[in-house]
Amino acid sequence: VDDQVGQEAARYVDTLTKPKGSLGRLEAIAVELAKITGHMKPQVSPPGIIVFAADHGIAAEGVSAYPQEVTAQMVHNFLNGGAAINVFARQIGAMLEVVDIGVAQPLAAPGLISRKVRYGTANFLKETAMSLKDAVAAIEVGIERAEAMIDRGIKSLIVGEMGIGNTTTSSAMLAAFLCGDTSGAYPGPDTTELAERMKGLVGPGTGVKQERVIHKQSVIARALALHRPNGQDPVDVLSKVGGLEIAGMAGAILAAARHHIPVIVDGFICTVAALTAVRLCPHVNDVLLAAHRSQEPGHQVALRLLNKEPLVDLGMRLGEGSGAAVAFPLVEAACRMIGEMATFQSAGVTDGEGA
Amino acid sequence: VDDQVGQEAARYVDTLTKPKGSLGRLEAIAVELAKITGHMKPQVSPPGIIVFAADHGIAAEGVSAYPQEVTAQMVHNFLNGGAAINVFARQIGAMLEVVDIGVAQPLAAPGLISRKVRYGTANFLKETAMSLKDAVAAIEVGIERAEAMIDRGIKSLIVGEMGIGNTTTSSAMLAAFLCGDTSGAYPGPDTTELAERMKGLVGPGTGVKQERVIHKQSVIARALALHRPNGQDPVDVLSKVGGLEIAGMAGAILAAARHHIPVIVDGFICTVAALTAVRLCPHVNDVLLAAHRSQEPGHQVALRLLNKEPLVDLGMRLGEGSGAAVAFPLVEAACRMIGEMATFQSAGVTDGEGA
Repeated sequence: VDDQVGQEAARYVDTLTKPKGSLGRLEAIAVELAKITGHMKPQVSPPGIIVFAADHGIAAEGVSAYPQEVTAQMVHNFLNGGAAINVFARQIGAMLEVVDIGVAQPLAAPGLISRKVRYGTANFLKETAMSLKDAVAAIEVGIERAEAMIDRGIKSLIVGEMGIGNTTTSSAMLAAFLCGDTSGAYPGPDTTELAERMKGLVGPGTGVKQERVIHKQSVIARALALHRPNGQDPVDVLSKVGGLEIAGMAGAILAAARHHIPVIVDGFICTVAALTAVRLCPHVNDVLLAAHRSQEPGHQVALRLLNKEPLVDLGMRLGEGSGAAVAFPLVEAACRMIGEMATFQSAGVTDGEGA
Repeated sequence: VDDQVGQEAARYVDTLTKPKGSLGRLEAIAVELAKITGHMKPQVSPPGIIVFAADHGIAAEGVSAYPQEVTAQMVHNFLNGGAAINVFARQIGAMLEVVDIGVAQPLAAPGLISRKVRYGTANFLKETAMSLKDAVAAIEVGIERAEAMIDRGIKSLIVGEMGIGNTTTSSAMLAAFLCGDTSGAYPGPDTTELAERMKGLVGPGTGVKQERVIHKQSVIARALALHRPNGQDPVDVLSKVGGLEIAGMAGAILAAARHHIPVIVDGFICTVAALTAVRLCPHVNDVLLAAHRSQEPGHQVALRLLNKEPLVDLGMRLGEGSGAAVAFPLVEAACRMIGEMATFQSAGVTDGEGA
């Protein structure tokens, strides 16, 4: 990031026709975007949205309120323009693409980007979710798709996901990033204590009842005790308890960071993908803006690890990138403020005495 | 408001392709807009923004960080498209008009709507701010301007203001609405205790230092003790310690309510204007959506009186309607959700088991 441009932008914001600091968070975002992009008048439009879809073997353990076939059905809904992310993408004028990176059934439809790494992950309660090679391949799909959109001219990136079971996967990955740092973090065959520690990381996802949340905690604890993923090694975590769409999102975020493209981070699953990218390359964190605070409890933990404060808190928990798309206009407003407002001097307005 | 349409809208939102409740606040807003407008698929675009500008005699008491001539200078900035509200109005595709309802100097410029009721209010530390007749005339200007915009096809209304000194006026009005309800609320010539009670209602406005905030508290307490405005009578409050632009905003809000046009309420000054309108006609509260939480402390008190929870909290305190314009896309997103999303049935997606 370009700290000098950031400092110039901060000084410039104070010359605009408004009391100093009176646009609050928007002023800070404008300065952040100037640092990320290296431009005093940064732009985030048009935004690009890539929705990665994949299935999760862990869905067989009854962790979701929806059957696995919904992943494929929702891919068709995306392609037909009827899902929440389509609606919000149209509102913000975003380029949108849908990538089959691992749906558990054959899929072909006009507009679908087919990059299936495998037919869903394996049930990680029984075996590793995928090979190391597949995890790397999925990251590479994400890099490729983000670079293609960047070539087409997007100025900011939103990544979204669809995958029945993927809050369970995300909670397992987050737990691995947290617990896997401590030696002896994974106890022996008795996983009761580990399951207890999953509280705060595991939530209702699409809306399962409390007893099923406890079941999710137990499933994750047993999987962690079985595979003992290394929290310092994101590819190990992805391969043991991860998801193909999460790997793809992490790859896309890596590519955006390399090109100084700001990433508007959606909710829980996206933030875990961002955390994966940041563990691979810490500088990635500099291009991330947290869009919204999800109702999923693990999201707060993941946000804290990235040291990010979301822009809005609307009680959303849908995924698909929807929270990022809904919050996007606030980021756009920050850009327009620094790009279009008159200064006290240019407008002939008397400046105040300062605060 | 139409409760039956609201109930139908709530049921319909649950059939859209997303886990029930997963769009959080957006779902509640969509239902609220359905109730206000009487349409299952409500629309808020195009929005209309009316900025009322007026001066405040109380500015002579040194309550602002800016000199009074800034009001007129900012009117020119609005007309030239360089102010924050212009930038955000363009972003959301809003109709925007600027009304001189009481700037303290002669103003004429292309595009300006001239409806000057008087050349600023009087200094209410010494005399009443304006006559009852002027207060009513200013309300009528607001009604007229809102009706003109509604005729031109706006589907929601934002009212903004410009007036050096108007946080002092708004704090005085809010205090009158609060204290004026209690008999004996206004003590005798010793206003120390009353000034103490102004804490929490009086803030830094454009950015004055703490000692000046205390001065503002004292000015307001003395004005209230002098005029003893009747908190049950909003026109009495306007005339004794009010502002012309605040009266205009209240009038515009009244007109919007009569036409079932949702009002996106900006920060402190706008919320006091909304409170004025609600005290004139309690049903007005049904069409109000609070946009953002201002940093000005009195805003929380005013919001509580209206029982409203803002959509965003971005630390803004600029006025002009800017916070409402910045939050508007979230309201638009709610409309698009209910208007454009596919249902489980129409998209052929298997519904879940519910939460």
